[in-house]
Amino acid sequence: MLRRLLLSFAALPLFPAVAAHDPAALRDAAAQTDTLAWSITEGLTTEVGQRLAATESEARSREWAVARLKALGFANVRIEPFTMPRWDRGAASATVLSPFPQTLAIAALGYSGSTPKAGIDADVVAFDGLAALKAAPAAAIAGKIVYVTHHMAAQQDGGSYGALSPIRTVAPGMAAQKGAAAILIRSIGTDHHRVPHTGVTRFPEGTRSIPAAALSTVDAEQLDRILARGKPVKLHLEVATRLTGRAQSGNVVAEVPGSDPKAGIILIGGHLDSWDLGTGAIDDATGVAITTAAAKRIMDAGQPRRTIRIVWFGAEEVGGFGGDAYAKAHGAEKHMVVAESDFGADRVWSLAVNTGAQGNPMVERLSEVLAPLGITRSHGAAHGGTDVEPTAATGTAVMDLRQDGLRYFDLHHTADDTLDKVDPAQLRQNVAAWTAALAVLANDPVELTPPPATATGE
Amino acid sequence: MLRRLLLSFAALPLFPAVAAHDPAALRDAAAQTDTLAWSITEGLTTEVGQRLAATESEARSREWAVARLKALGFANVRIEPFTMPRWDRGAASATVLSPFPQTLAIAALGYSGSTPKAGIDADVVAFDGLAALKAAPAAAIAGKIVYVTHHMAAQQDGGSYGALSPIRTVAPGMAAQKGAAAILIRSIGTDHHRVPHTGVTRFPEGTRSIPAAALSTVDAEQLDRILARGKPVKLHLEVATRLTGRAQSGNVVAEVPGSDPKAGIILIGGHLDSWDLGTGAIDDATGVAITTAAAKRIMDAGQPRRTIRIVWFGAEEVGGFGGDAYAKAHGAEKHMVVAESDFGADRVWSLAVNTGAQGNPMVERLSEVLAPLGITRSHGAAHGGTDVEPTAATGTAVMDLRQDGLRYFDLHHTADDTLDKVDPAQLRQNVAAWTAALAVLANDPVELTPPPATATGE
Repeated sequence: MLRRLLLSFAALPLFPAVAAHDPAALRDAAAQTDTLAWSITEGLTTEVGQRLAATESEARSREWAVARLKALGFANVRIEPFTMPRWDRGAASATVLSPFPQTLAIAALGYSGSTPKAGIDADVVAFDGLAALKAAPAAAIAGKIVYVTHHMAAQQDGGSYGALSPIRTVAPGMAAQKGAAAILIRSIGTDHHRVPHTGVTRFPEGTRSIPAAALSTVDAEQLDRILARGKPVKLHLEVATRLTGRAQSGNVVAEVPGSDPKAGIILIGGHLDSWDLGTGAIDDATGVAITTAAAKRIMDAGQPRRTIRIVWFGAEEVGGFGGDAYAKAHGAEKHMVVAESDFGADRVWSLAVNTGAQGNPMVERLSEVLAPLGITRSHGAAHGGTDVEPTAATGTAVMDLRQDGLRYFDLHHTADDTLDKVDPAQLRQNVAAWTAALAVLANDPVELTPPPATATGE
Repeated sequence: MLRRLLLSFAALPLFPAVAAHDPAALRDAAAQTDTLAWSITEGLTTEVGQRLAATESEARSREWAVARLKALGFANVRIEPFTMPRWDRGAASATVLSPFPQTLAIAALGYSGSTPKAGIDADVVAFDGLAALKAAPAAAIAGKIVYVTHHMAAQQDGGSYGALSPIRTVAPGMAAQKGAAAILIRSIGTDHHRVPHTGVTRFPEGTRSIPAAALSTVDAEQLDRILARGKPVKLHLEVATRLTGRAQSGNVVAEVPGSDPKAGIILIGGHLDSWDLGTGAIDDATGVAITTAAAKRIMDAGQPRRTIRIVWFGAEEVGGFGGDAYAKAHGAEKHMVVAESDFGADRVWSLAVNTGAQGNPMVERLSEVLAPLGITRSHGAAHGGTDVEPTAATGTAVMDLRQDGLRYFDLHHTADDTLDKVDPAQLRQNVAAWTAALAVLANDPVELTPPPATATGE
């Protein structure tokens, strides 16, 4: 027995690195035993809580991340700082003055303007969707509170968010250009709770930033019913946001150095910042937790051929500043593939890879090792996520491990984005998927090449 | 054809009232077609919204109720005013100062005291349950913020609420008597959303009213995790409530007059007031809506033998003032039975009747007509509800049509108590149950007699 153990031990260094990274065995171990992703998610959401970009909280989260990543044994752990315009949420409230006095639950959108301190009183003019607002003459809107509603259904692939989020990002600027006093939108969300969904909006260059806020879906339906009575609806609105100049944010970087520096970097991660209403559990503590837990499993199994670079990006929510800063600093390095986890922590159901060669055997190997987790191959384009898109644009392959989005927009950008919404079993499935994928990506003898500029998926 | 119509018309007055009230036929019509309960619930929650006792909103709701009950054709529609101590919620906020700075979502409890305007900073001392708080020496509590947690599970009969609500009603007074600076409790609720559950608390005579607030269940679990790190936890707390002296509330009364004034009154209803955080949909717009819709069906089918008196009680939430005022004004009248709907609008699953005679045939007839709705006979005591208990105490039979409570404490006393939580199909089942029960109660040849003083159910 002793002899066999000694032989095993002696034999280990002779194994090539790739043998230590048996994707199926690593996948199954993660699926059955991973607790690291939960521990990171629990720790970050408990010991830091919300992490609004460029705030003291986000700075604390970077220190927390550095300490944790170093303790886990990663190499080259560091903060890469950058600056960005800081926006602070103040108080926001909406009250129906007539015909039926009552309060409505709202949350200001990121970069919303403010009302005067005493607030504003104005009539509501309602639109069903962005096209209706676009078609309306300025005379119907000037001086009014624009209200835009919609009909969002939950979809596994999150498609309805893509279709409707311009109501948040574009409608406020459009309303401002037509002279609106303010704008309220129905939250871009699928729940029925009294928790408005915030999110960033953008006012075109030269357009005044008007007060812009989201009603909870419940309050939007209340306003719909009030409007349906056919009487003029007058609101009192107070929104007190602040733009306080440029402030510091940063990306936190850690690595599993590969044995072959020429084989290209695998860039993975999620974003460390969050909106300020919840504790950023599914958006995106779980993203950094899943990718880090998977990389840790590869590291512990032996040195991979390719370097795995984990980035906990800063300032994603408010405009993707962390992803831009990373690409500016590192875009000239050779990245073989970029991939991000930023769609919660429900089960991965689909693999998508954007790469140059049709029938790349590495993609086949990825498909095979992910199939036992219930993951099927998608033929749509891989998007990568806000944080890695600027790097992908420098010319890299992109991989998506797509998560079930049916619950995601119940919670996204609300006060309800908290730890209790994370399902530990589905979180482990995510870690298993990322571990298996990294085991292939980090060691495969072939390479994923960048897609042609117009690629829409492999 | 004309002759038959004329004959039918001429024949109608000859039918005895009881024949027009076929309980099974009325039940089935309500189950299939009722829209009145929805219409009342939708109207009250939309056109008035929250209805905190003794406020302008509650006064508006009385005017709304009178107009609606008159329009429905009820007799003797009136407001019976009374006065009570008015309590107003101001702002309330809680912030963890150390070890992990972050905000926690709270709502002041009804009759909570206030902090100084600048708030208070104090360490947290935590207790798992009321017994642990009771056992603690004052020295461990004086000057601290007491936090009481618990482990509430959803139960069909709401039993866990009865067991745990003393944490809300009793613990604040107990903490005050031991010198606590303030008290936070885990919401007496079963959801996982960022919506704290308010509710009334009571400070014993001569005890100072300290600030008392509920953390949402999500925030309570966050505080549990922070405390589990083992470091002292310091909070900043601001609570700004106001007691503004006596103000007017009132009950709204309507009747379906019976043909036999000596046969005793059937008192039914729910409460018109609500907490101020939501719109009081399940607590208790649906209660007044269900009982009113059922009484309307009886009225429209012909005059019953017994008078049905519908009361939309005022000021239930803050201390049962409406029920006390009613009993004071009407307790000397002959009430055969009292019954209230105040447990949401999910399906009725159980009938309980407190009456004097074992094997009363009217109770058998109630059981039979309710069975097709999936309602079984309970052998537990009927409680009647806060609003009708003072009248029951004068010596009346009591009937409960008990609703499924599995969802009720997800919503109860929160901002999430809104119209979208009402299931129209289950609401119709409630109306069907009440209609069938009223058809029996209002016409039955036998009488329900009061239970003996110590009765625990028939």
